Amino acid sequence: MQLAKVTGQVVATHKVESLTGVKLLIVQPLNSAYEPVGKPSIAVDATAQAGMGDHVLIEGGREAAVAIEPEFNPADQAILAIVDTVYTPEQ
Amino acid sequence: MQLAKVTGQVVATHKVESLTGVKLLIVQPLNSAYEPVGKPSIAVDATAQAGMGDHVLIEGGREAAVAIEPEFNPADQAILAIVDTVYTPEQ
Amino acid sequence: MQLAKVTGQVVATHKVESLTGVKLLIVQPLNSAYEPVGKPSIAVDATAQAGMGDHVLIEGGREAAVAIEPEFNPADQAILAIVDTVYTPEQ
Amino acid sequence: MQLAKVTGQVVATHKVESLTGVKLLIVQPLNSAYEPVGKPSIAVDATAQAGMGDHVLIEGGREAAVAIEPEFNPADQAILAIVDTVYTPEQ
Amino acid sequence: MQLAKVTGQVVATHKVESLTGVKLLIVQPLNSAYEPVGKPSIAVDATAQAGMGDHVLIEGGREAAVAIEPEFNPADQAILAIVDTVYTPEQ
Repeated sequence: MQLAKVTGQVVATHKVESLTGVKLLIVQPLNSAYEPVGKPSIAVDATAQAGMGDHVLIEGGREAAVAIEPEFNPADQAILAIVDTVYTPEQ
Repeated sequence: MQLAKVTGQVVATHKVESLTGVKLLIVQPLNSAYEPVGKPSIAVDATAQAGMGDHVLIEGGREAAVAIEPEFNPADQAILAIVDTVYTPEQ
Repeated sequence: MQLAKVTGQVVATHKVESLTGVKLLIVQPLNSAYEPVGKPSIAVDATAQAGMGDHVLIEGGREAAVAIEPEFNPADQAILAIVDTVYTPEQ
Repeated sequence: MQLAKVTGQVVATHKVESLTGVKLLIVQPLNSAYEPVGKPSIAVDATAQAGMGDHVLIEGGREAAVAIEPEFNPADQAILAIVDTVYTPEQ
Repeated sequence: MQLAKVTGQVVATHKVESLTGVKLLIVQPLNSAYEPVGKPSIAVDATAQAGMGDHVLIEGGREAAVAIEPEFNPADQAILAIVDTVYTPEQ
């Protein structure tokens, strides 16, 4: 799982049936100092409440489909949580 | 999931049975400004209607097989939607 | 699976239901000489006892969800063990 | 899925039971101009007929195991088809 | 799947229950000329007989868990075979 920021949205009229009514958001991965790392990708919103600019927890793979209904959804990346704070003490 | 553009097609006569009748398209991943990023790969067309030059939404992994029938198809990348617009406001 | 060190924690109030009560730790992958390699990511703690600074064994993918209950949890990275020693003889 | 060329074979007498009788081929990924890209890896041959030097369609992940019998085979990369032609029109 | 060499072992007393009694080996991926490529990682030994210095066939993902018992083991990389020879003819 990774920290990310919501930076955009994708609109697609013609799509596979299981994605009907699912919000498709563009997410930019961040490090724990909230700096961008790597390339943005597209995730379904499993929290149903993430908005533009939010810091979120994303994950990929088969688990992403599990996060939304129906379970056999072909999604491969999902937003699981809206992040409040990141705690990284000096060690 | 990622944005991509359909750039070609692969023809294979001798293949595993579950890929019979499935369209195999070459897809080039794009960023949200529609510029190519990374290497093209080969995806099955789950929308049944993607054509040469279309902007599409692709994804990989176990979910790709779920997007087409039968469910236990050995595909690992599928086209899920034809993309109309990408919305990325300044922040 | 990889060696890693626990370096932080993520706090998220609004999240998918299956992550309720699950500890989300930031983990930095290490090589067998305990030096950092690659980027940190976020893992659920399946051992229930990993603490800040611990050396742990992490893994990713569908298996991470299997490591915690319920099985259909959308986690994609988990801490499986707290590592005591790494044995790498000269060859 | 990716284009690849068969470049070698691996012989292993002592192996897990489900790989008994399965051909293990070394495959070099190619781009659509048939040039090598990335590193070779080892795939099981699900077509049962791929030979040294053939252009093939390979894929990875859980789907690879689905391509051969029994379904719960621990393979993670399989050859799905022998490629006849690749069509990439100018655009 | 990839060629690799066994280069070490990890000892972990406190771990998830399904890893009890499972040997955790450090494996260095090799190319077909037996030269190291990429970073070492940690794999469970599904052959039950791989030893320090052996050339082995490893794979990752959900299939790794399938290679050992019980099937829902959270392993994500396993040793499937001890490699005898690699055949790569000139072409």
